[in-house]
Amino acid sequence: MIVIMQPRADENKIKAVVNRLDKAGFQIHLSQGVEQTIIGAIGDKTRMGDLALEAMQGVERIVPILQPYKLASRAFKEQDTIIQIDDITIGGEQIHIMAGPCAVESREQLFEAADIVKAAGATLLRGGAFKPRTSPYAFQGLEEQGLKYLAEARERTGLKIVTEVMDANTLPMVAEYADILQIGTRNMQNFFLLREVAKMDKPVLLKRGSSATIEEWLMAAEYIMAGGNYNVILCERGIRTYENYTRNTLDLSAIPVVKHLSHLPVIVDPSHALGKWKFVPPMAAAAVTAGADGLLIEVHPNPSEALCDGPQSLTPENFQALMKDLGKIADAVGRRMG
Amino acid sequence: MIVIMQPRADENKIKAVVNRLDKAGFQIHLSQGVEQTIIGAIGDKTRMGDLALEAMQGVERIVPILQPYKLASRAFKEQDTIIQIDDITIGGEQIHIMAGPCAVESREQLFEAADIVKAAGATLLRGGAFKPRTSPYAFQGLEEQGLKYLAEARERTGLKIVTEVMDANTLPMVAEYADILQIGTRNMQNFFLLREVAKMDKPVLLKRGSSATIEEWLMAAEYIMAGGNYNVILCERGIRTYENYTRNTLDLSAIPVVKHLSHLPVIVDPSHALGKWKFVPPMAAAAVTAGADGLLIEVHPNPSEALCDGPQSLTPENFQALMKDLGKIADAVGRRMG
Amino acid sequence: MIVIMQPRADENKIKAVVNRLDKAGFQIHLSQGVEQTIIGAIGDKTRMGDLALEAMQGVERIVPILQPYKLASRAFKEQDTIIQIDDITIGGEQIHIMAGPCAVESREQLFEAADIVKAAGATLLRGGAFKPRTSPYAFQGLEEQGLKYLAEARERTGLKIVTEVMDANTLPMVAEYADILQIGTRNMQNFFLLREVAKMDKPVLLKRGSSATIEEWLMAAEYIMAGGNYNVILCERGIRTYENYTRNTLDLSAIPVVKHLSHLPVIVDPSHALGKWKFVPPMAAAAVTAGADGLLIEVHPNPSEALCDGPQSLTPENFQALMKDLGKIADAVGRRMG
Amino acid sequence: MIVIMQPRADENKIKAVVNRLDKAGFQIHLSQGVEQTIIGAIGDKTRMGDLALEAMQGVERIVPILQPYKLASRAFKEQDTIIQIDDITIGGEQIHIMAGPCAVESREQLFEAADIVKAAGATLLRGGAFKPRTSPYAFQGLEEQGLKYLAEARERTGLKIVTEVMDANTLPMVAEYADILQIGTRNMQNFFLLREVAKMDKPVLLKRGSSATIEEWLMAAEYIMAGGNYNVILCERGIRTYENYTRNTLDLSAIPVVKHLSHLPVIVDPSHALGKWKFVPPMAAAAVTAGADGLLIEVHPNPSEALCDGPQSLTPENFQALMKDLGKIADAVGRRMG
Repeated sequence: MIVIMQPRADENKIKAVVNRLDKAGFQIHLSQGVEQTIIGAIGDKTRMGDLALEAMQGVERIVPILQPYKLASRAFKEQDTIIQIDDITIGGEQIHIMAGPCAVESREQLFEAADIVKAAGATLLRGGAFKPRTSPYAFQGLEEQGLKYLAEARERTGLKIVTEVMDANTLPMVAEYADILQIGTRNMQNFFLLREVAKMDKPVLLKRGSSATIEEWLMAAEYIMAGGNYNVILCERGIRTYENYTRNTLDLSAIPVVKHLSHLPVIVDPSHALGKWKFVPPMAAAAVTAGADGLLIEVHPNPSEALCDGPQSLTPENFQALMKDLGKIADAVGRRMG
Repeated sequence: MIVIMQPRADENKIKAVVNRLDKAGFQIHLSQGVEQTIIGAIGDKTRMGDLALEAMQGVERIVPILQPYKLASRAFKEQDTIIQIDDITIGGEQIHIMAGPCAVESREQLFEAADIVKAAGATLLRGGAFKPRTSPYAFQGLEEQGLKYLAEARERTGLKIVTEVMDANTLPMVAEYADILQIGTRNMQNFFLLREVAKMDKPVLLKRGSSATIEEWLMAAEYIMAGGNYNVILCERGIRTYENYTRNTLDLSAIPVVKHLSHLPVIVDPSHALGKWKFVPPMAAAAVTAGADGLLIEVHPNPSEALCDGPQSLTPENFQALMKDLGKIADAVGRRMG
Repeated sequence: MIVIMQPRADENKIKAVVNRLDKAGFQIHLSQGVEQTIIGAIGDKTRMGDLALEAMQGVERIVPILQPYKLASRAFKEQDTIIQIDDITIGGEQIHIMAGPCAVESREQLFEAADIVKAAGATLLRGGAFKPRTSPYAFQGLEEQGLKYLAEARERTGLKIVTEVMDANTLPMVAEYADILQIGTRNMQNFFLLREVAKMDKPVLLKRGSSATIEEWLMAAEYIMAGGNYNVILCERGIRTYENYTRNTLDLSAIPVVKHLSHLPVIVDPSHALGKWKFVPPMAAAAVTAGADGLLIEVHPNPSEALCDGPQSLTPENFQALMKDLGKIADAVGRRMG
Repeated sequence: MIVIMQPRADENKIKAVVNRLDKAGFQIHLSQGVEQTIIGAIGDKTRMGDLALEAMQGVERIVPILQPYKLASRAFKEQDTIIQIDDITIGGEQIHIMAGPCAVESREQLFEAADIVKAAGATLLRGGAFKPRTSPYAFQGLEEQGLKYLAEARERTGLKIVTEVMDANTLPMVAEYADILQIGTRNMQNFFLLREVAKMDKPVLLKRGSSATIEEWLMAAEYIMAGGNYNVILCERGIRTYENYTRNTLDLSAIPVVKHLSHLPVIVDPSHALGKWKFVPPMAAAAVTAGADGLLIEVHPNPSEALCDGPQSLTPENFQALMKDLGKIADAVGRRMG
C-alpha cells in the first residue's frame, strides 16, 4: 500500500505512520518530495484494513496496491477454474444455458418449461422455490414443494438444477435438492449466508449485487472461497444506473474484466438485467461474444400468465430461436454449446 | 394503474387486457385516442404485481398510480409516528443523537466512548457486536461478549442501545440486549430477516440500501410493518454514485421526501455516508436543518487505533464541538436536542 | 399525457386543470376513483412541456404517454435510416469500422495510422484536430493543420474522414474537410452547436452524453433533425456509473433499445468507454453481435508514444486480429463488413 | 505520480518506464517488492497526462498523487477567495440569495419577480434570456430583449444580474448586460466557451455538470482561471443518480469538500436539483448550514403560468417564508444574510 501524507506534514506525523507500519510487519520505502512525502509499505495485504492509517494525523489518503482478494485472483491461480457437475463443465470450452421460469408455480408449469428448454438445448434448469419479492404482498414461492418439483423435473429431463438459497435456515433443505446454489443479488453481501454456503460441497452461483463494484463482487467470492468452497460461478445481472428504460444496465465489460482479474467462470443473466424480453436475445448473444461461460435465461410456457417476472420471460418459440443463434455465435468465437 | 397500449394495438389485444383486469376485480376506464389506447384500472394495488400485464400482447407499459406501500404511507396515517423507548421519543419535537464506536472492541474502549458521548449529550449508544465486513480477513466483531459490554454500558450511563442484527439465528440474542434493532444497509432487502424483526417488540432502525430508491426503502419498511412491527425508524446513510471523493453521496433530500411520503421518523448517518470525519460535522448539522429526527454518529476515544472505520470517527473533542453546534441549529429550526 | 391528482384533490382544482388542458386544445378523459382522480389528455405532445401543470394546485404528477421526440422515432419512420457517403452505406447490412488515432499528432503519425487501418479493412479514418481535454495544460490538437492532414490521408487511402467539431465558429472549417461531423459526448446537449450542425449537408455522428438517458440522446438527435439534417448516426460510448475499473460502463443494451425506439443507425465506441485497450476487442465484437452498425476504434502506430488516450489505443497487430474476429461475428449475425 | 508495475514485470519494462520519466524531468524513487515494483515519480504534474505511461508494457496502473488542478487548489491559495461586485461580497461572511424566474418571459413578469425577491431580501436577480431546453419545440428564451429587461430590472431595484451565457457568439452581448456570467450544467465541459469567459472581466458562476466529479468541476474552474479570470463561483445543482423521485440528487457534501480542496466560493441551486418546489426550502436551509456562500432560487409570481420550470419555482409567499428561516440559520452558523 502507499500512504500519501498531506503537503507539509511534519516529521513527527511521518514517523508515527512509519512506526505503525513497521510494528505491523510491513517493509517500508520512504519518498520525500519537496511538496509531499509518500510512504510505500509492502506486506500482508489482508491486514491493511485494520490499521486505520487514514485516521492518523497528517495522512491524506491510502492507495492500495494489491487487490484485497487473494484466492479469487488470477495472480493466485493462473489457470481458469473449471467446475464439474457430473458431465457438465462450467468455465471451459463449453457454454451452458440455464433456463426456466422465474418461479416454480406448479408441477405442470415446471415440467412444461423443463421439457421446452431441454428440447432447445439447455443443460440446466432454473426456477425459484423461495422468491425474494420487493413487495410483502406478492407471491413468495412454493418453498419445499417447489424444490421437490425441481427434483422431479431433473429426474424427468436430466437437467441439473440451479435454485436460489435465501437464508442459513433453509440452506440445508435447498442443498438437498439443488445442483448449484444460487446467491441472489440482494444477498451478495449477506456475509452470514456466504459463510454458510462456503461449508457446502455444492457449487455456488454468486450474482453481482446491483450496486456492487467488480472488486466487491470478487471479495464476496473470496468469502466463500476462504470458507473452503472453491466452486464459485460469478453471474453478472445488471447494475443500477440512472438509465431507466431497461431495469438495470447490463455491464458486459465485467466479463473480460473479471476474466482478467480472476480465474473464476462468469455467466450472464440478461433477463433480470433488461426486464423486457424483447432485448434478451441480442444481449444474450453479445454476452457469449464477450466471453461468458454460460447464460441464465427466463423462459415461461406462457409469460403473460407468469406469477413472477413475466415481462422478461421468453416464450418457447423465442427461446428456440435464440438457441440457434447462440450456436452460430459460439462457433464464431471458437467455443461450443454445452 | 394505467395500461398504455402500443400504437395501433388491435381490438382483440385491448379486450384481452380489459378482461384480465376485469376478472381481477379492477374497475376500468378506457381512453381510445387516435394514436394510442390507454386503460385506467382502479382496484387493489397490492394485486397489481402478480398480473404480468406487461407480458401481454399489445401492451407497451404499465404506469402505477398508487404507491406500492400502504402501511408506511402518509395517506394511510397522516400524523407523524412517534416511537417511545422509555423516556425517549423519536419522531417528535426532540432530536436524538446515537453515538459511539463503529465496533465494540473491548470493555474499556466501549465504556470510555459511552462516557464521552453521554457527557456531550447523546441519548443512545451505538456500537456493533457483529460486523459485516467486506473482507473475510477483517475484524468481525466480539459477538455476544460485545452485546454484554453494551448492556453494561447502558447500566453505567443510562444510554439506550442501538446495535445491528445480521441474521435470523442471532436475532433473539441481539434482541435480548438491544433497545433498537439496526438493520444494516446490505440487509435492507434481506426479506427473511425483515420478516423476523417484524415479530419482535423492539423498534427497528432500517438503513437505506446503498443503491435503494426511496420507494424500495419504504417497501422494506412495509415488510416489517406488514409483519406487525410498526416501530420503524428510517436511516439515510448515503447512496452509491459515481462521485468517489466521499465514500457515498449523502442524499439529504431523502429527509423531506420521506416525510412527504411517509409518517415514519427519519434519522441520518453522516459518518458512513462520507467516510471522512472532517466532513461529518457540517453534514450532521445540515441533516438536522433538513428535518432529520436524529443522527447516528461514529465517535471513538482514539480513532487512529480503531479496529473499524477509524477514518470516519470523530474524536471526543470534535464530537463535543458538534453537539454545541447542533443545539444552535435545533433552536433555529424550532426543535430541541433530546 | 396523464395528470394524476392528489388524493382528495377538490373539484375546483380538478376543474382548473381540465380547463387549462381544454384551452390548450387537448381532448380529455376523466377517471374519478374513490381515492384519486386521473385526467387523460390527448393532443399535441410538443406543447406539453410548456403547460406547467405540475405547478398547479392539487396535481401530484404528470405521466407522459408519448415520447417527446418525433422525427427520430420509429413511429414516425418505420424503415431503418441508411446514410450514404459516396459508396459507403451506414445503417444497412454492412458494418463499418471507423479507426485511427485519438488525436492527429503529425503527418507521419496520421499517414502511418491510416495505412494500417485501411489495410486491416477499416473504411473510415477517425482522428481529432480539436481535442476537448479536461486539463487546460494538456495537448489541445493541431487544429486546421490537423484537418489538412486528414484530408491528405483521405486522398492517400480513400478512407472517409470522421472528426469532431467543437463549436459553431470552427464548424465551417471542419465541415470543409470532414465527411462525418462528430459531436462529442460533452456537447450532446450543446443546443447551439446542434442547431448549427443541423444546417450542414454532412452526416452527424452524435455521441451519447456520459450521463444522458436514451431519451435525452434521442432528443438531441431530434434537435438536429428538426433543424433539417436527417443524417444522424448515434454513437454509444459508455455511461458514467459507480464502477471505476473501466472508465465508463459500456451500455450495449442501448443498441437494441435505440433500434426499437428509433430508425437511426447506431455505432459503438468501445475505446473511450473502457479506457483500457485490453478490453476493447471482446467488447467491439459484442457490440456487433448486439446489432451495432459500426464501430469507432482508436488505433495508434505506437500507443505508448500517443499524445492522447494511448492506454486505450490498439496496436496495429491487435487491430488486425480484431478485424478478423469481427468478420466471423458479422457472418454469424448475418451481416458483412463494409 | 506512482506507477504500479504488473506482478513479475521484467527489468526491461521497468527500465523503459524509468527512462521515460527521467527524460520528462521527473525525480524517481524505485520500490522493488517481492511481488510488484512500484515507481514513484515527482515532478511537474501538468505534464503527466501526456506521458501515456499506462500504454507502456508491464504497467498495471498509474496513481496520481497531486491534484490535476493548481490555481483552483487550496494548496495554491490558502485564503478563501472573496468576489466583489460593487458592494456585494461573495465568499466571505455574507450569504447572498440570487432569486428570480427560470426564464425572462416578459417585462411585467420580470419586474414583478424582481420586486418580490428584492423585498424579501435577495441581492441578485436571476433569469434566463437564452434557455437550453432539452426539447427543440419548447420555449427558447427572449434573447437580447430578455437581457434588456434584466438591465431595466437592475435599474429599478438595484439587484445585480446573473444570467446564463450559452455560446461564444452571444457572450459579448450577454456580458454587456450581466453582472455575473452563468455557465450552465451542460456547458461545464464546453472548453471553447470556458476559454472565452476566461477573457472577460466579469465573475463566472460555474454550475457543476450533472455527472461531473468534484475533481472535474474544479478542472473546469481551472480552465477559466488558467485563462486569466480568477473570479469563479462554483454552483452545486444536483448530480444524476438512480434515484428519480427528485430530478437530481443534491450533493450537499460537495460544499465542505470543495471548501477543503479549493479556495473558491460555493453556492447551491436547490430548485434545479430537486425539481419540486416543496422540497426547496428545507434543502436551501440545509445548504446554508453545510457552508454554502449563497443560493440560486427560482421564484415566479405565478408558478403555474411559468413558461419554464414552474413545478420547481417558489411562490412569492413561500420565498418570503424561506428568507425568514434562512436568517435564523445564518445566525446559528455565525454568518449573516447579504
